Amino acid sequence: MNLEAQWIVGFVDGEGGFHVGINKHPDMKIGYQVLPEFTVVQHERDIQVLHALKSYFGCGVVRSNHGDRMAYRVRGQQHLLQHIIPFFEKHKLKTKKGIEFRKFRRVLLMMQEGLHLTEDGLLKIREIAAEMNRGAVR
Amino acid sequence: MNLEAQWIVGFVDGEGGFHVGINKHPDMKIGYQVLPEFTVVQHERDIQVLHALKSYFGCGVVRSNHGDRMAYRVRGQQHLLQHIIPFFEKHKLKTKKGIEFRKFRRVLLMMQEGLHLTEDGLLKIREIAAEMNRGAVR
Repeated sequence: MNLEAQWIVGFVDGEGGFHVGINKHPDMKIGYQVLPEFTVVQHERDIQVLHALKSYFGCGVVRSNHGDRMAYRVRGQQHLLQHIIPFFEKHKLKTKKGIEFRKFRRVLLMMQEGLHLTEDGLLKIREIAAEMNRGAVR
Repeated sequence: MNLEAQWIVGFVDGEGGFHVGINKHPDMKIGYQVLPEFTVVQHERDIQVLHALKSYFGCGVVRSNHGDRMAYRVRGQQHLLQHIIPFFEKHKLKTKKGIEFRKFRRVLLMMQEGLHLTEDGLLKIREIAAEMNRGAVR
């Protein structure tokens, strides 16, 4: 299945999500780990669409999500910075999910500079993450 | 906001729905009315996307759906046959929603021939509608 960029934008406007998790992590000097994640969730009957997204972006995994739902999921700074962020910079989302994306992008750029390993940076990321979760409809 | 065809396909693959309702209607000779409907539901914060769909297709209405959700909705044989069906014939849906669309299209073509006003036609449409609803994930 070949996907066109605009189809992906429309599908992600509908079904995609950008999320920043912040977990306690005793092995990290700062005590917390920042976990940015891009996901597209879909009923298992449409798993082939999730695999097509994986092929298109050249990164991420397709895994079981919850019950009969599957998720295409991209984690990891490098995959997000090299594949996901540039795509949505070039092809703008049309719904309010674009606002979520810009916050997500901001967190990734801070991580690229290592700011998530500083106390001030972590506080700022926590604020942005809280805004993103407040804005989420589902 | 200008929409591209492939964005619409991706968005409808995610958020759109094709539905055939069959209601009792004492004024109809056959006793039932067939009500095909194309909808795209969205949180009210993204109402501008629904208006952009309405402009693109040149038919339908944007109305409150349920709680804080809005719907773009196209009813009526002529609008569906002239605007919605040809669009998705030309631009194929990529998820299993394409199967739902083809059943929906079949009902509309039967209605175009007046078969929904015959007993056999109505029975057949009822079968197709039941299959569509069984296939629905949400």
